[in-house]
Amino acid sequence: MNVDFGNALASETVTGVSETSLERLDDRVARAHERIETGIEARTFGYASLALPEDTDPGAIRAAVEGFDPEAVLTVGIGGSALGAETITEALGITEHYSLDNVDPAWTERTLSELPLESTLVNVVSRSGTTAETLANFLVVRSAMAEAGVDWTDRTVVTTGESGPLRELADEHDLPACSVPDGVPGRFSALSAVGLLPAAALGCDIEAILAGGAEGRGSLSPSLFETPAYAYGAVAYALENRGATTNAFVPYAEALEPLAEWFAQLWAESLGKDGLGQTPVRALGATDQHSQLQLYRAGRKDKLVTLLRPRERDDVEIPETDIESLSYLGGETLGELLDAEFEATEASLAVADQPNVRIELDRLDAKSVGRLLYELEAACILVGELSGVETFTQPAVEWGKRAARGLLGGENAEEAERVSEKTVRLVE
Amino acid sequence: MNVDFGNALASETVTGVSETSLERLDDRVARAHERIETGIEARTFGYASLALPEDTDPGAIRAAVEGFDPEAVLTVGIGGSALGAETITEALGITEHYSLDNVDPAWTERTLSELPLESTLVNVVSRSGTTAETLANFLVVRSAMAEAGVDWTDRTVVTTGESGPLRELADEHDLPACSVPDGVPGRFSALSAVGLLPAAALGCDIEAILAGGAEGRGSLSPSLFETPAYAYGAVAYALENRGATTNAFVPYAEALEPLAEWFAQLWAESLGKDGLGQTPVRALGATDQHSQLQLYRAGRKDKLVTLLRPRERDDVEIPETDIESLSYLGGETLGELLDAEFEATEASLAVADQPNVRIELDRLDAKSVGRLLYELEAACILVGELSGVETFTQPAVEWGKRAARGLLGGENAEEAERVSEKTVRLVE
Repeated sequence: MNVDFGNALASETVTGVSETSLERLDDRVARAHERIETGIEARTFGYASLALPEDTDPGAIRAAVEGFDPEAVLTVGIGGSALGAETITEALGITEHYSLDNVDPAWTERTLSELPLESTLVNVVSRSGTTAETLANFLVVRSAMAEAGVDWTDRTVVTTGESGPLRELADEHDLPACSVPDGVPGRFSALSAVGLLPAAALGCDIEAILAGGAEGRGSLSPSLFETPAYAYGAVAYALENRGATTNAFVPYAEALEPLAEWFAQLWAESLGKDGLGQTPVRALGATDQHSQLQLYRAGRKDKLVTLLRPRERDDVEIPETDIESLSYLGGETLGELLDAEFEATEASLAVADQPNVRIELDRLDAKSVGRLLYELEAACILVGELSGVETFTQPAVEWGKRAARGLLGGENAEEAERVSEKTVRLVE
Repeated sequence: MNVDFGNALASETVTGVSETSLERLDDRVARAHERIETGIEARTFGYASLALPEDTDPGAIRAAVEGFDPEAVLTVGIGGSALGAETITEALGITEHYSLDNVDPAWTERTLSELPLESTLVNVVSRSGTTAETLANFLVVRSAMAEAGVDWTDRTVVTTGESGPLRELADEHDLPACSVPDGVPGRFSALSAVGLLPAAALGCDIEAILAGGAEGRGSLSPSLFETPAYAYGAVAYALENRGATTNAFVPYAEALEPLAEWFAQLWAESLGKDGLGQTPVRALGATDQHSQLQLYRAGRKDKLVTLLRPRERDDVEIPETDIESLSYLGGETLGELLDAEFEATEASLAVADQPNVRIELDRLDAKSVGRLLYELEAACILVGELSGVETFTQPAVEWGKRAARGLLGGENAEEAERVSEKTVRLVE
């Protein structure tokens, strides 16, 4: 990816960061880079994520999906077990990938009713093999397959850890299985089987995705001024320290909407710790200019706006029209209109003293997308280093998991009791 | 809707609001209510939005779509011209409504290739009739229809203002047309033809949606302690003053995902002014527990979390399993699991001193959804009154619109020049 942080400089916006500050910060970036490199080399927990382009074996993923040639892939997973795969297939224009990443009964039923179960590959993903939402949905899917006369053991692949109920299930029924890589938190696992299997099953060039990741790996250097990922991370960190507690992430491409969601998890779960961490706000250009731009320009000065676009795309010409007030559109393309709005929005934010950063990828192809994912992960890890938080854990979500389990009659009655003691102040 | 703000009280969370403060605030709510009532009665600009359940003529909407009986409806509009309609059809489980609310060429092409154009009703929505994105897409759609051998004048309805290019087009070709109501900003127009036409064309009971709106109208009273909409608005306002600069809006229903987007526009564009306004963050339960919850619990204490759910829903049983660690799930339903997670998350936020509010609607039916939209609008308007901002305008978006037009060779060269002077600080 390319990063242009011109509009985040103090010379452009009052809440921006000065070149001098960035130069001082670059020493810390160099030290952080050293820790990151050491972590990658040693495959230390979390840092191992950045070794995935090298460590992931595309052959093993291809072997797991060999012979299926499905009409559709249904991923059953939640959070990091689904978002990476959704992001990759959608960015590459693959429309046959569905996912059950929620336990909404209406949604599960609708999804199952839309799918040709006899030619769908079901892809169950859970590291522990015990994620409640994933396993509940899988039990429902299995029973729907049985009802449709489909032998689920013929059409299910599993990606899970080395042990646990899903692994046992795979062993028992001889299901094709991939491993969730060691030392890689879910939200960093897009460049492993977790993120790549559906793309592989639907005919995508996963080797090219990994090659893009490897390019990202090669782009890391000790200076933010030489490394796009670190430039973005360092500027985001500097702006957070200057009051930008929100990071509005705005791709100008519908196919990158899941990427915004993936980014929101990456940023929130990695950096939302110790009272720190920017709140990621996912948006979409140009649509959200008609929704969020008023706030970004005239609201609190507590934001970084990240604008993202591919530099090249297939385009559609806008037909000429005899409507005079619209004649300026005729002969242009939708892509040119979108680019004009991108640049106009960027400038309109700068004029309103709202710092923003431009990220560009070459185009929406396998290599560029793989590289983008890698570099955004590296950016996030750098922010974690600079902030001094534990980037790779997510301890705060455990309380709720225990409480939910307790409410459903499992163990952990203590948290469940706290739930039942809720203070009610009802207006109806 | 019902509002339970027990978990937003100072007695529960350190950044909450005390009962005493709310009692004092209630005097201001009463005065604001008086202004709102006066505005509704006089159909003053903006306040007229809250008169829509009375003023909208469902018969005129039905007349516009009569005889079409389409397989699909394609709305061409952006921002408030599309979001209300998307919200309503999705909430009611209608899957045949598509929209082009962006000018992404790949997306426009994909949408057009998926639709049976000969049996699709094209619904073009723009108050001015000159919205660049909408008109550009419409020109593309028209040409795709021609290519498919479909006479576009036979399959197009228009919702627009009393004058402008779209109105002239409708007159010229004798297209069925509805009017964007006077005095109602786009983001408040869901309960007019703007939001209701696609639902009506697809067989939905729009009278019941309006009846729900009328119930909402009837629920407004001078006290926050008696009025759910004002309870929510007043608590949001009080929390914003206590540092909750973010409002994470989290429906626990996939069908309410567009509602979260609609809410984000409502909140951002109405309240994002004068350096004020909560940043709306749209999220989705239970999915985002695996993404955002870490941040909400352990990040900055600058958030209100709004949790929303229907009290009743059709459910799906989770089959029994012989996997021991999952046996607690067997015999439960997906809905029970979702509700347990909802309540567990709510409590887990409170335990972490993160204020949250519970909003419930009866179920996802026409009446409840109509009422919900109305009451969230009323809540927003109350916050605007209490904050003293101009709720119904969006002046900050104009600069970018002029710049984009200038870049495309229309007038407004001054803003376009500013765009071309961008400071570039590129790392590649």
